[in-house]
Amino acid sequence: MSQQGKINVAVENIFPLIKKFLYSDHEIFLRELISNATDATLKLKHLASIGEASVELGDQQIEVKIDKDGKKLHIIDQGIGMTEDEVQKYINEVAFSGAEEFLEKYKDTASDSGIIGHFGLGFYSAFMVADKVEIMTKSYKDEPAVHWSCDGSPNYTIEAADKKDFGTEIILHISDDEQEFLEESRIRELLVKYNKFMPVPIKFGTKTITLDKPEDAKEDDPAPTEEVDNIINNPNPAWTKQPSELEDKDYKEFYIELYPMQFEEPLFNIHLNVDYPFNLTGILYFPKMTQDLNVQKDRIQLYQNQVFVTDNVEGIVPEFLTMLRGVIDSPDIPLNVSRSYLQADGAVKKISSYITRKVADKLKSLFNEDRKAFEEKWNDIKIVIEYGMLSEEKFFEKSDAFALYPTVDGTYYTWSELMDKIKPTQTDKDDKTVILYASNKDEQHSYLKAAKDKGYEVLLLDSPIVSHLMQKLETSKEKVSFARVDADHVDNLIKKEEDQISKLSDDEKEELKTSITEAIDNSNFTVQVEPMSSDAAPFIITQPEFMRRMKEMQATGGGGGMMGFGNMPDMYNLVVNANHELVQEIFSTKTKKKKDRLIQQSFDLARLSQGLLKGEALTQFVNRSYELIK
Amino acid sequence: MSQQGKINVAVENIFPLIKKFLYSDHEIFLRELISNATDATLKLKHLASIGEASVELGDQQIEVKIDKDGKKLHIIDQGIGMTEDEVQKYINEVAFSGAEEFLEKYKDTASDSGIIGHFGLGFYSAFMVADKVEIMTKSYKDEPAVHWSCDGSPNYTIEAADKKDFGTEIILHISDDEQEFLEESRIRELLVKYNKFMPVPIKFGTKTITLDKPEDAKEDDPAPTEEVDNIINNPNPAWTKQPSELEDKDYKEFYIELYPMQFEEPLFNIHLNVDYPFNLTGILYFPKMTQDLNVQKDRIQLYQNQVFVTDNVEGIVPEFLTMLRGVIDSPDIPLNVSRSYLQADGAVKKISSYITRKVADKLKSLFNEDRKAFEEKWNDIKIVIEYGMLSEEKFFEKSDAFALYPTVDGTYYTWSELMDKIKPTQTDKDDKTVILYASNKDEQHSYLKAAKDKGYEVLLLDSPIVSHLMQKLETSKEKVSFARVDADHVDNLIKKEEDQISKLSDDEKEELKTSITEAIDNSNFTVQVEPMSSDAAPFIITQPEFMRRMKEMQATGGGGGMMGFGNMPDMYNLVVNANHELVQEIFSTKTKKKKDRLIQQSFDLARLSQGLLKGEALTQFVNRSYELIK
Repeated sequence: MSQQGKINVAVENIFPLIKKFLYSDHEIFLRELISNATDATLKLKHLASIGEASVELGDQQIEVKIDKDGKKLHIIDQGIGMTEDEVQKYINEVAFSGAEEFLEKYKDTASDSGIIGHFGLGFYSAFMVADKVEIMTKSYKDEPAVHWSCDGSPNYTIEAADKKDFGTEIILHISDDEQEFLEESRIRELLVKYNKFMPVPIKFGTKTITLDKPEDAKEDDPAPTEEVDNIINNPNPAWTKQPSELEDKDYKEFYIELYPMQFEEPLFNIHLNVDYPFNLTGILYFPKMTQDLNVQKDRIQLYQNQVFVTDNVEGIVPEFLTMLRGVIDSPDIPLNVSRSYLQADGAVKKISSYITRKVADKLKSLFNEDRKAFEEKWNDIKIVIEYGMLSEEKFFEKSDAFALYPTVDGTYYTWSELMDKIKPTQTDKDDKTVILYASNKDEQHSYLKAAKDKGYEVLLLDSPIVSHLMQKLETSKEKVSFARVDADHVDNLIKKEEDQISKLSDDEKEELKTSITEAIDNSNFTVQVEPMSSDAAPFIITQPEFMRRMKEMQATGGGGGMMGFGNMPDMYNLVVNANHELVQEIFSTKTKKKKDRLIQQSFDLARLSQGLLKGEALTQFVNRSYELIK
Repeated sequence: MSQQGKINVAVENIFPLIKKFLYSDHEIFLRELISNATDATLKLKHLASIGEASVELGDQQIEVKIDKDGKKLHIIDQGIGMTEDEVQKYINEVAFSGAEEFLEKYKDTASDSGIIGHFGLGFYSAFMVADKVEIMTKSYKDEPAVHWSCDGSPNYTIEAADKKDFGTEIILHISDDEQEFLEESRIRELLVKYNKFMPVPIKFGTKTITLDKPEDAKEDDPAPTEEVDNIINNPNPAWTKQPSELEDKDYKEFYIELYPMQFEEPLFNIHLNVDYPFNLTGILYFPKMTQDLNVQKDRIQLYQNQVFVTDNVEGIVPEFLTMLRGVIDSPDIPLNVSRSYLQADGAVKKISSYITRKVADKLKSLFNEDRKAFEEKWNDIKIVIEYGMLSEEKFFEKSDAFALYPTVDGTYYTWSELMDKIKPTQTDKDDKTVILYASNKDEQHSYLKAAKDKGYEVLLLDSPIVSHLMQKLETSKEKVSFARVDADHVDNLIKKEEDQISKLSDDEKEELKTSITEAIDNSNFTVQVEPMSSDAAPFIITQPEFMRRMKEMQATGGGGGMMGFGNMPDMYNLVVNANHELVQEIFSTKTKKKKDRLIQQSFDLARLSQGLLKGEALTQFVNRSYELIK
């Protein structure tokens, strides 16, 4: 029985196939047909430019027209058109991609003429919304015009037509359950969504514009008006131009074109432009980050040769940059593919790392060109940069050139400046440089004041992911550690070889510790009696760095999670300054009631400084204090 | 030139077409081939069950086998098989969906036998990863076995084979750039991802299991082991069973099967089971909501007849339920389609509202069956319920039966219980019932204490979206309004027809107001001197409800945004109790310095109660207070 044969494709099944799998989103038909029309227009322009077509081009445009009574939608171009042979070849033979053959033939000259070659099968998508499709076409080659017609079965008719001008008109007889595509508002919506920046002007209806009054007009004459073509798109969007052609104002205007509902100006932009080893243009904007939950609505848009593809760039742009806005246009990004495929694709990987590099370079040059302006923007951009430092090793390496470390007083250091500044004063006896920071200037005020009074620099690090970043810096940089100002009392934050002399003996300290522990009766606090400067506070509550940071890291995802730090109660030290006058008084007070009251009031004040006096305890403290004033 | 014809599909182009458009994610081939194998297996089972096939079925299974040296991957089933005629018809003719024809023929008996009919074109996806594909197949009909072979061009060979058992074996000669599909770990990953719950057992290699020791074994004899088939899937997952067959423990075990990395038990589950007007089964779980940013990793999984499709159910499940976990299995959800298409699809709309209704019904019955347990879970589930009440009108209507309003003391009221309770005491002179609430028991302690001392109920409403929900309740329910306990002093929160007698005359009040305004010198505070009960606090800071709520609503998206409330500074009232002893003292103090000091200390204490004393002001207050103790 051995035999050979050829797999046969049953043509009756090709239309359901297209309908079901190829373009499950019906609205796509309009993008496809306009892409074809654009393709045909640019092809003719290209042929004319290299002398292969001798035609009068004029202002080529594409027109979209609704015939509501006739239930028809027309898409008309002034492009290359088709001869009868070409209709036979390109229309009657499915899956023969005309654009690819064209590109092959003219590959040397066509490479930069912007020809769309990716939507070869698009024409058949017309059958998703139309019972019947007609083509009226006349080739630039001056052969007779052709009228092709097909009702969605594989049977077609083809006959002569009396079309005079070259180009193609597609007529869709919209089917009964797709009548939405005869609504002006729906078509306008689709044109704006997919074709806003297509390279050929698209006419959709007309609009009335107001002209200047003639000079001899009377004051209350109405201004004259005129009906003009309503062009729906901008065929030359900013990203298709060279950076040298554009000014700051142009970038800002294009931002509004992209996001008409955005009132906030972008902070700065990055113009992308590369053609080897892949082709990519685009403009990215750093927006002002807000707390607004809708921030992810205006996202980076992906185009291919000025045709909108998607606003989901996950997998193409590194994750930390998905918070940016703008446009990326590249024919080298595979369409309609899954995330996992994208992430494995070589070209996409290169694109992603190119974008990362460009962003890093731009940040570096912004910093170098106008440091003051860069510092002013830091608060708005730091979350992106810090997230990038954490997630992309290459970006981390480059970040030394622009990442800033602001102090609570508003000085912005680079890493190396910071090290130069603090090494002499903030290096401990084990030769580790301790970077002090606050996460909130208000909440940690008394602590950061104590550190500053000692001549230390205190950074303000308040991003949600900063605990992860510190962890990374501690392991990447040498001999540094971070400590929040309330991680210990100021003499212990940076341990040096100096001992304070205690006014209390060891036995006395132990006795005091016992009285205080009994009086506060709270197992979340460990009492430590230590000799400190007499003008330091009498009671100070501290929270060791390690445990607190682990808990923070778990709260923002990853790190420590598996070890269950999140469920540990908050543990504090109550550091009692043995050398403070008030503490001396507490120690020497004999009546237990008075002693306990002194301890309680001091403990409340220490808790106030650490933000731990809340609820009923606070209300009682306030009521007690009102009594004290009277 | 008029002529007619038939659109021709050039077969040479069908493979690139499949490769490019149909399955851009190459790994899909394995899902497709195993779906076909499952299909063939279930078909034979069905035919046997209705007496049309007289074969010995045995334990039908599917085997996946890697031949690394031969660079081949085998998928072997014990299903219906194909005769030579059937190979001609189903394999050599592209786009002829065998499953659909089968379903048509046996539609009366096949409806509930779980036949997969949606992957008709799947076989050709083999060519995405293989240079050459072979089929060895023998039909249950006892005709000769067939060996088909094709190298990806449309040319095939077909010949007799000596296969003995019925069923089909597909042999893929994996191409050089797809070698990953010869790795055991990769194939295992794909089988687990797509086929974890397929209805036919899938064998992939073997594993060693430990047997019980024989009774006469010595103590240190090793336990005997045995090599057994390694079955990769669970062919009977919980959602395919009837709720009556399952116990609580089964649901919990299935949760772990779905999310092996989840340590937290789900709060409760909802078993979905409907077959008219659409077919849907599934189990949804309410997880314990955590702050963890990775919460969206373990998402609801969508299956079709036990084949995994996606874990992105946006558009299928109402948005407020995407925080749930679990499984939905429905053949009626269109595959591979865009969100906008899904949202417009009638079947999907019905599915979405069915799920909403089932969730509401389940919540109602949980509440009715064990109110105490439901109350204990409220904190973990309220965010989902409140979001649902805001976004789905139908859900809002049903929510009266289970939505709870907890008080700061831990009593949980339904809406009607709440109204019964507070109407007598909390209805103001305009006949509006005022619902008092706190957003934080600690921060608003002194205010809620004042309200409770007056006999009012105070709710604890602390979800991030609760300001939106209050807005909705105020417009949906009649004559109610919400006020946070610090929106005004307690006598004004619920205005009644009673006037406090003032110990100060109007002139005196005016004089006091001027001194206080000057002393605090802060334009964010408006001073109001009012007669209140003499045991109310002397100074109280309040923040009017409307403005504060608008700002909160803007911060969580929507409402007030366009009106720019977000940029307004926080404005407060400083209410001074004209009848308080301390205020009398302030009024009668003559020395400006002493008067100002009294005012300042009282103002600081009022700010402490409202959480407004921070940073340097707090540090100074604490230092001043240490001095006061000494």
